[in-house]
Amino acid sequence: MIATGVARFEILTPPADAASRARLGRLHLPSGVVETPQFMPVGTNATVRSLDPDDLREVGASIVLANTYHLYLRPGHERIARLGGLHRFMGWERPILTDSGGFQVVSLADRRVVDDDGVTFRSHLDGSVHRFDPEHAIRVQEALGADVAVAFDQPVPPRSSGRAVVAQATERTHRWAERSLAAHRRPDQALFGIVQGGLEPDLRAASTRLIAGLPFDGIAIGGLAGDETPEQRAAALDVAVPLLDGDPRVRYLMGLGSPLDILDAVDRGVDLFDSVLPTRVARNGQLWIPGGRLNIRNARFADDPEPVQVDCPCRLCRTFSRAYLAHLFRAQELLAYRLATCHNLTFSLDFMARIRMALRAGTFPADRPGLRARAGGGALGLDAGDPA
Amino acid sequence: MIATGVARFEILTPPADAASRARLGRLHLPSGVVETPQFMPVGTNATVRSLDPDDLREVGASIVLANTYHLYLRPGHERIARLGGLHRFMGWERPILTDSGGFQVVSLADRRVVDDDGVTFRSHLDGSVHRFDPEHAIRVQEALGADVAVAFDQPVPPRSSGRAVVAQATERTHRWAERSLAAHRRPDQALFGIVQGGLEPDLRAASTRLIAGLPFDGIAIGGLAGDETPEQRAAALDVAVPLLDGDPRVRYLMGLGSPLDILDAVDRGVDLFDSVLPTRVARNGQLWIPGGRLNIRNARFADDPEPVQVDCPCRLCRTFSRAYLAHLFRAQELLAYRLATCHNLTFSLDFMARIRMALRAGTFPADRPGLRARAGGGALGLDAGDPA
Repeated sequence: MIATGVARFEILTPPADAASRARLGRLHLPSGVVETPQFMPVGTNATVRSLDPDDLREVGASIVLANTYHLYLRPGHERIARLGGLHRFMGWERPILTDSGGFQVVSLADRRVVDDDGVTFRSHLDGSVHRFDPEHAIRVQEALGADVAVAFDQPVPPRSSGRAVVAQATERTHRWAERSLAAHRRPDQALFGIVQGGLEPDLRAASTRLIAGLPFDGIAIGGLAGDETPEQRAAALDVAVPLLDGDPRVRYLMGLGSPLDILDAVDRGVDLFDSVLPTRVARNGQLWIPGGRLNIRNARFADDPEPVQVDCPCRLCRTFSRAYLAHLFRAQELLAYRLATCHNLTFSLDFMARIRMALRAGTFPADRPGLRARAGGGALGLDAGDPA
Repeated sequence: MIATGVARFEILTPPADAASRARLGRLHLPSGVVETPQFMPVGTNATVRSLDPDDLREVGASIVLANTYHLYLRPGHERIARLGGLHRFMGWERPILTDSGGFQVVSLADRRVVDDDGVTFRSHLDGSVHRFDPEHAIRVQEALGADVAVAFDQPVPPRSSGRAVVAQATERTHRWAERSLAAHRRPDQALFGIVQGGLEPDLRAASTRLIAGLPFDGIAIGGLAGDETPEQRAAALDVAVPLLDGDPRVRYLMGLGSPLDILDAVDRGVDLFDSVLPTRVARNGQLWIPGGRLNIRNARFADDPEPVQVDCPCRLCRTFSRAYLAHLFRAQELLAYRLATCHNLTFSLDFMARIRMALRAGTFPADRPGLRARAGGGALGLDAGDPA
């Protein structure tokens, strides 16, 4: 059933019971092992913004995501291939996943036209015209050479899209999934398929069955982490995940980043996550701490000698005061963005480690209230006023 | 003769001979030892832009300079004092020197009015009105608590200032030097005096004699590294330094940063330097290498798999290619600025170490051609087109 065997997934906890579908796992990839549930920091341009690989190791990252669309446009996938591939290019020897490019083509590119065969779009950088289809998206990802490639899909906003739009995009995603599989050649690279179906239970179920029936190495759950409510997302997961019962493959929900949202999705059986949220809000001065967050630009921190989080081992908290970080943000000093990013990723990845610890100890359902309290009760998302 | 004894300076090489006034030394400060000749990276806002203290240690910095004017305005010297002083605030336990504020008051502040008693100016940040006089400049620096404070002075552009302007500024600097000494109280902080005198040999000589006659802990040579030619600077040094023959104190030329300029000033008997040059040009993509420099934004580096400098141990060169750095600069990724800054400071501080090695080995005059070649023959300054 598995296409290449390069993404072997071990499930280390007993099968789901009534209390939770959460599971502890271990994903074996060519460049290393990823303990799950796990969060992937996003390195859009082959760098997790403001961090270097030593920083990434220090915050505990075991896998990062890089954006196919961005790297295709700049510096170019063929250039990265000539330079020895993405791992060597960015100095990161641990696992990397490249996304399909579908989301960025739809959300960032200008004047895109989607047809049944692919997407024609203009670069957001220079207006030049490009075309992505399943074969090209795979070719680009094979050139980049990440551990995991993802089949080209057509995501649509789940809540604001009508049923006909969702149905058409889901249908295309299915055809493109088969073309992506047929095009994929690299034996040292895993390929994940993407389930679509929006918030329509029958479409979501049909998409899950179809994608799960193809020989992908992992199942990505797409078309969520968009404009849906947490309840709508939970309902969609509760349609899709039970249909994957007994499926040996890892499950990846694309685009989810707030600890509370992740906790809920883990509970519903998801293993892998990525989002720009912790790093993006860090650069806006939003620091995640147990039970909530600090907006370091708030005047009350200007004289605060305490670390951002007393027991945090990160580069920011082990040396500097809130007052110093507040000063760096006010002075727009570059160090501010790095220190805040180190902190939020340390918090996020530590949160995942706490989830895994509870699963390993067999106390996950019992520990959910404590994890929920640490996650800040949903307070860790973007403020309405934060720039996207 | 020494005011506080907190800046004991050991001269480790024999007295100057006809071949060179260069000397090897060791400056003992409250927070540590500084081997001289030495270069001080500039941390304007209590951070060397884009670096953290671990980076500073890694590039080999033994002392950094912080700007009194900037820290007075933001976050405020009293706030830094309440937070335990500048060392604790910025997480840097090694020596720090704060400048007098005189240069920034004159060059950055708006609508400044200099009178015989001090300078009234508007903040470049918010237009608020402030006044610096010698007593206040010392008070601010005592609150910051660096290892070394510097007496308040009035610098003027050496080449474009008429003799009368230079004479008046030098005269004021002398009176302010005495007032700075009288105001200085901290027994754990050294105080350096500043020689002025522009390019006028008699004024430069008189200023050197007067400042050297006061009980400062070190002698700063001011009013240079401005709009003068290298020959004019050499002539001014050749007036001042011989008058300090037999003086036991460290000599510091403010504002000089290009390796070739530094080499020449070392040769003429200067021990200590500071400049924003290596860090500022790094953030513009100018990388210093033996014999010259790379402008990493040049198209020819986009595919270059080599490190910026093959034998360089810095964070940039030991992991990444020129192509990767070129990509980071094009994508305006924050990591670009940190990696380039680490490299240029590693180059600068390694260059100082090579000068010290030649002095220690007794081969300095013989090694000058090799050092000059490594310094790039004057090619390491700002390009005419570089932003200031």
